[in-house]
Amino acid sequence: MKSYSEMTRAELGEEIAQLKKEYRKFQNMELHLDMSRGKPCQEQLDLSMGLMDVLDSSSDLTCEDGTDCRNYGSLTGIEEACELLGDMMENNPKDIIIYGNSSLNVMYDTVSRAFTHGIMGSTPWCKLEKVKFLCPVPGYDRHFAITEYFGIDMIPVPMTCTGPQMDLVEKLVAEDPLIKGIWCVPKYSNPQGYSYSDETVRRFARLKPAAKDFRIFWDNAYGMHHLYDDKQDYLIEILAECKRAGNPDLVYKFASTSKITFPGSGIAALATSPNNMDDIRNQLKRQTIGHDKVNQLRHVRFFKDIHGMVEHMRKHAEILRPKFEMVEDTLERELTDLNIGTWTKPLGGYFIHFESLPGCAKAIVARAKKAGVILTGAGATWPYGKDPNDNSIRIAPTYPNAQDLATASALFALCVKLVSAEKIYAEKET
Amino acid sequence: MKSYSEMTRAELGEEIAQLKKEYRKFQNMELHLDMSRGKPCQEQLDLSMGLMDVLDSSSDLTCEDGTDCRNYGSLTGIEEACELLGDMMENNPKDIIIYGNSSLNVMYDTVSRAFTHGIMGSTPWCKLEKVKFLCPVPGYDRHFAITEYFGIDMIPVPMTCTGPQMDLVEKLVAEDPLIKGIWCVPKYSNPQGYSYSDETVRRFARLKPAAKDFRIFWDNAYGMHHLYDDKQDYLIEILAECKRAGNPDLVYKFASTSKITFPGSGIAALATSPNNMDDIRNQLKRQTIGHDKVNQLRHVRFFKDIHGMVEHMRKHAEILRPKFEMVEDTLERELTDLNIGTWTKPLGGYFIHFESLPGCAKAIVARAKKAGVILTGAGATWPYGKDPNDNSIRIAPTYPNAQDLATASALFALCVKLVSAEKIYAEKET
Repeated sequence: MKSYSEMTRAELGEEIAQLKKEYRKFQNMELHLDMSRGKPCQEQLDLSMGLMDVLDSSSDLTCEDGTDCRNYGSLTGIEEACELLGDMMENNPKDIIIYGNSSLNVMYDTVSRAFTHGIMGSTPWCKLEKVKFLCPVPGYDRHFAITEYFGIDMIPVPMTCTGPQMDLVEKLVAEDPLIKGIWCVPKYSNPQGYSYSDETVRRFARLKPAAKDFRIFWDNAYGMHHLYDDKQDYLIEILAECKRAGNPDLVYKFASTSKITFPGSGIAALATSPNNMDDIRNQLKRQTIGHDKVNQLRHVRFFKDIHGMVEHMRKHAEILRPKFEMVEDTLERELTDLNIGTWTKPLGGYFIHFESLPGCAKAIVARAKKAGVILTGAGATWPYGKDPNDNSIRIAPTYPNAQDLATASALFALCVKLVSAEKIYAEKET
Repeated sequence: MKSYSEMTRAELGEEIAQLKKEYRKFQNMELHLDMSRGKPCQEQLDLSMGLMDVLDSSSDLTCEDGTDCRNYGSLTGIEEACELLGDMMENNPKDIIIYGNSSLNVMYDTVSRAFTHGIMGSTPWCKLEKVKFLCPVPGYDRHFAITEYFGIDMIPVPMTCTGPQMDLVEKLVAEDPLIKGIWCVPKYSNPQGYSYSDETVRRFARLKPAAKDFRIFWDNAYGMHHLYDDKQDYLIEILAECKRAGNPDLVYKFASTSKITFPGSGIAALATSPNNMDDIRNQLKRQTIGHDKVNQLRHVRFFKDIHGMVEHMRKHAEILRPKFEMVEDTLERELTDLNIGTWTKPLGGYFIHFESLPGCAKAIVARAKKAGVILTGAGATWPYGKDPNDNSIRIAPTYPNAQDLATASALFALCVKLVSAEKIYAEKET
């Protein structure tokens, strides 16, 4: 098939008429489908129902160190949970704090603490004229929402398939002492599914920030979320690499079991250096007497150990792999050779990223919505929701069932074709 | 028996010798008892083991409104939990936000949010030269720890058996726009077990603060924690009273199930006006996608309704009542007529407060510690840990078992006698 730009105006006009006819068919189906958020589907949630059985009224809710999980105490988490999440995060259990249900909450609190009390003795960010963060784009909208809420200037840094453009990152953090952080999703990134290369991680660990309170916000949300047994991305462990590079305090690392067990009832964790830990513990002891220990124990008893968790993640992969492949196959089938967009084919994580022709993303998302399929809002992958090229669309294939996903991806591809064809048609006019 | 101050020096000297002999007996027992914190005892925790049975892998974890509790969503809590905690807090479910395990965390976050973003559009507290809080004394050390951590000036206000001295509270908040809050434990207060009178609550609701962002931090931690069936304190509901008084936005009200089910795995809540709710929701949506919903559902299914919770609390009372009475009886038996201290006899809550002779509290606590009984640190009931009269001791009778508590209270009374006698003896010398 000819690419759209190679078609004559007449050919394109005919194509558009045909596409509109197909679009009306979708409209007549009165769809209500949601591909907007990275939510596990019901089948995935069912995998963890065993969590509800590991504790009952005859269970001993005592930890290995004798702590009664039902009572007050254990500010930074019970030992066995630190061990399990240590294995999950590839960190020393001693470098880990277990929190409540939400790692987003941990990230918010980390920014908030830096605002009110500074980091390891530095000036609280609220006392500074301005604070800036680097934001690899496209990126995760909820990260950007936190920094926006705190009035932090967000500076976009382009992502590549090996991570953020490190030349730019190195230059900016070395030059500007107001740059205090960078948001990273280093493995199976949100939304592209890219994993940082060894070179990228090494360069992160060797950053020479002008601000001594600069921190890398390393959100390893998808560390365990492989789609394939035989093709998996590996990441150099960042805390260890920072330590080797002589920059032990450079990183806050976040993770959770949200997409391993239940997003509505998981446990979150932070891993960082002993110096940062002391700093955080000093605040945490005023904030709470401790997070939910029974749920920590529940997770430990459910998985038993990291091998149990890995096996569990293979079951997630079995559910998700066909969904990712269905979207990829649909895009391949419908769009190859048309030259109207590219998409990522990640080996893990929760998203596929689609890059449309410039200026088309909003229109594509709007078209899909008018036919009953909700996609992540165009622009959401950029700070302030403003994608300057209007070409970034995040596709979240996990939540819908196979049939709905087939319909939704077909509609999506159709919307891409329609909007792109109309754009090219209009351009040919002038 | 003569009071110590009526004794001659010689009589006192003999008494001291006798007391020291008794004290050595306790030392020889090599005790390791803890009466320092308001922790439920194991028997109390056992009351809630049914929580572990209400959900299993065959349970439907769907809320009444169709929300799957396992997945993301429900930022401010599931409806049925808002309803249960609404009944518990005597508030409209719509005025309630459910949080994670710790109400202290909610209070910390409330102060922190005011620091970084202000309250309903007012200047963030971090931008002010100074912020002040009123602190009824004696009070709760963890409240004071939060305000101290934020560098807030804490102004002590004396407690009476009907609540804080309201003349002083009214005067101070009307005069000083830097006073932004007051810590209150309005029912079965920590540490005295006093409940605010109707008059006090009415005056709170009618405060005319100079600061429009002044808020009452109303920590109703012990709302359900009666010790007796037939003698119970009732409190005018503060949000309703504020609404009636035309000051709907004056209060943040906190509560949790920490001392109802498990301190290590409960749910916390905040109740406040719709305006404050909007303000908080605007922040909360950046902080988290939602707190643990499965645990909310677990609590609802366990208690079924408020009557279930009330009946549950009667079982707590049956365990706690004899403990409180044992301490009170011991103090009565050992100290009556000696004129060396007074103590409260609360109808609920977690503490008994002992007021020693001035300058004796630290010494009493130290003596008890040397014989193996840990009491709450003297001074802890005052801001900055500084009790100017050194006469306030918080007794926490809930955690030890009956036998240990008998020993510990007897030792406590002995230490009071010994320290007081030595003080009076020394005074008679001069």
